[in-house]
Amino acid sequence: MHLALFCTEAGMHAGGWRHPDAGAVRPFDLGFYRELALKAEAAKLDMLFVADKLGLDDLYGGGVAATVARRPNARPEPLTLIAALAGATSRIGLGATVSTSYAEPYHVARMFATIDHLSGGRAAWNAVTSVSDSEARNFGRAAHLDHASRYERADEFIDVVRKLWDSWEEDAIRPDKASGRFADDRRVHYIDHEGRHFRVRGPLNVERPPQGHPVVIQAGVSGTFQDIATRQADLVFTVQPDLDSAKRAYAAFKAQVAANGRPPGSVKMLPGLMPIVGRSDTEAEDIRAELRALIDPVAGLTFMSGSMNYDLSRHPLDGPFPDLRDVITGSRGRFQRVIADALERGATVAEVGAAYVESLSFAVAAGSPKTVADILEQWVTEQAADGFVLMPPYLPGGVDGFLTQVVPELQRRGLFRREYCGATLRDHLGLDRPASRYA
Amino acid sequence: MHLALFCTEAGMHAGGWRHPDAGAVRPFDLGFYRELALKAEAAKLDMLFVADKLGLDDLYGGGVAATVARRPNARPEPLTLIAALAGATSRIGLGATVSTSYAEPYHVARMFATIDHLSGGRAAWNAVTSVSDSEARNFGRAAHLDHASRYERADEFIDVVRKLWDSWEEDAIRPDKASGRFADDRRVHYIDHEGRHFRVRGPLNVERPPQGHPVVIQAGVSGTFQDIATRQADLVFTVQPDLDSAKRAYAAFKAQVAANGRPPGSVKMLPGLMPIVGRSDTEAEDIRAELRALIDPVAGLTFMSGSMNYDLSRHPLDGPFPDLRDVITGSRGRFQRVIADALERGATVAEVGAAYVESLSFAVAAGSPKTVADILEQWVTEQAADGFVLMPPYLPGGVDGFLTQVVPELQRRGLFRREYCGATLRDHLGLDRPASRYA
Repeated sequence: MHLALFCTEAGMHAGGWRHPDAGAVRPFDLGFYRELALKAEAAKLDMLFVADKLGLDDLYGGGVAATVARRPNARPEPLTLIAALAGATSRIGLGATVSTSYAEPYHVARMFATIDHLSGGRAAWNAVTSVSDSEARNFGRAAHLDHASRYERADEFIDVVRKLWDSWEEDAIRPDKASGRFADDRRVHYIDHEGRHFRVRGPLNVERPPQGHPVVIQAGVSGTFQDIATRQADLVFTVQPDLDSAKRAYAAFKAQVAANGRPPGSVKMLPGLMPIVGRSDTEAEDIRAELRALIDPVAGLTFMSGSMNYDLSRHPLDGPFPDLRDVITGSRGRFQRVIADALERGATVAEVGAAYVESLSFAVAAGSPKTVADILEQWVTEQAADGFVLMPPYLPGGVDGFLTQVVPELQRRGLFRREYCGATLRDHLGLDRPASRYA
Repeated sequence: MHLALFCTEAGMHAGGWRHPDAGAVRPFDLGFYRELALKAEAAKLDMLFVADKLGLDDLYGGGVAATVARRPNARPEPLTLIAALAGATSRIGLGATVSTSYAEPYHVARMFATIDHLSGGRAAWNAVTSVSDSEARNFGRAAHLDHASRYERADEFIDVVRKLWDSWEEDAIRPDKASGRFADDRRVHYIDHEGRHFRVRGPLNVERPPQGHPVVIQAGVSGTFQDIATRQADLVFTVQPDLDSAKRAYAAFKAQVAANGRPPGSVKMLPGLMPIVGRSDTEAEDIRAELRALIDPVAGLTFMSGSMNYDLSRHPLDGPFPDLRDVITGSRGRFQRVIADALERGATVAEVGAAYVESLSFAVAAGSPKTVADILEQWVTEQAADGFVLMPPYLPGGVDGFLTQVVPELQRRGLFRREYCGATLRDHLGLDRPASRYA
């Protein structure tokens, strides 16, 4: 079983930052993230990975007032954050979210290759396509790219990045002071990429990363996502609200991986999971109820508006939630079921805003350490997941119960490593190290 | 006197990596850079700053063969490198070179703001405009932007970045768990920038950096550079081969700063200086001669071709150096004097290639610790410099003589700090902390 820790500035539950056991939010304090990374490393987790958006969630009401006033919404830039953590940790993988919609492949290839070197082979890139006009407006555009264009761009972007990582073969650098020969130029290659979105000649000016390629993560639920991820990803991070849907998604995804000529085990599937751990099942449910009571529905709607790329303030809080399934242009796939459920229940806008941001449709595992371990064991045993992306409700304390009580229980059951066996993140994940296509 | 250490993968002297006292080149080893940063911090230097180019110097001969085979030419990405060093150091400033020609202001503002937070106010940005077609071809262009366009873009780019740093006023984030109020939205501002090169709405999604604005460094010699830097820069890094030219440049620059309505002390001028320290002046000259003998003229020409954006392999090695003063499109200003000198001396192409890369036209201070300290004292006393960017001939050992013998001599003379007095790089440099324009 593989376990990654999803790292945000204040945890994933919309009420989390207000919980009495949550520390003061310190979104820009290296000490906060270092402490979290070291805890996760002590528990032998595969990876810590950092979420991102390229702007504030200011669509709701057309301004920053609602979002900035009501919830943590500013965050460190992920590449520089995981680079800072590379020096503070020694074994755990470090992932950063970087959008393909507003970046250049040469910069992205180079930064991840550099972090892979500085960390000794522990870097991972969560490639996303961004969701909202708020992000587009920080990069010279009036509106975000449409769904098809941004996925097409993402597909080519990842391809270019992987070519750049291949542009230096293994051991090209062999300095010899006496002769003055520094490297073997026959092992350094132009990529000469000419595509619809990018023209990149290469070579990269960073030698081949320790992992060959840093691990590529993709997240999503749409068919377009699945088409790309089954070809391009090393790990997928998915939204599955329950075991049955997770089993169906796992089977379909792995079948498509195989159909693309890749071994099913070469892409790991990790659904997000919010653990709420108590001494007993009852205590965990009490914590869950306490957290739920701290949710501000409007704060929830600011988040939802950003993810949907649609201003929900157009609809009164106490009116019925509208049918926006064909209207939204942000994370479309992710909201189809959320909206259908809301319509079926006749829920109000405020109710949906509050309910959605409890766990953002990710499964919640609330219970005693044994109960939570049972849930994880069942999902993995019944082929619903290769592991989980843990989404703590609040941070830093909200993950302690999991790390100190659930992880040892999983270790006792032989479901999770007691020690790191390899040096790189690919080793932790059981992923092969790719060879250079130019070798 | 202010002292910055220029950090490259193998030192600045073209023969440096081959010197017997130079360690093995480890361009991607965090330990190499950490050791260097800690040594510089122990000597109380203001800053370490990292050079960059966005590709290999492959213009010479139209391929990677000459450059990759003959000299260190691949390097870590600077932002991620200084982020990694932020966690390993506690007082020294950390600067990274980032080109304005192939980046987005939102990303750059955000990364430097993040590093400023993670380091507790020690970040600096060396804003450059790039020089060669080799770089352009990694970013979808056939050729580099012309001189005027790239400086115009740089000017607007820096302006946008500074606006984004201002978009959060001081202390906007004031989380209150009880009321659910997270931040004061009246202190968070759209920048609504609409310029010739960029449209950026903001706000940044990072709160105001500890320094207000991270320190902005610019490097150059042209009139266009001076026009922008006297308005925009906090520190300039210049090429001055000797005391007289440095005094003239210093006076002219500070006069223009004043003419722009800024106090002359609000922009520090630090010429680059290559220190070669021996136990005696004779020993230092011997080391200099030893290093010079290790230069490969063709390796020098690959570097020069990249900086000129002109393929010097068109001219035979033993033929006269051609008059390229109106032909080159890279670092134009910097090569006017180099070429004039070559023509006057009737030097061959190989001779110029070898001579230029000894110190890249930066002044060389070779001598005993006392002699080198005398040179630095004279430059500062006679108003030729506010300090220096130290360019060690090789690394990591090539800076030890300076740090352990010249710095103590400067301290004894009362010319350099014995301890850090403030917490931030602006404190070290004696620069004011700017207020937000939106406050």
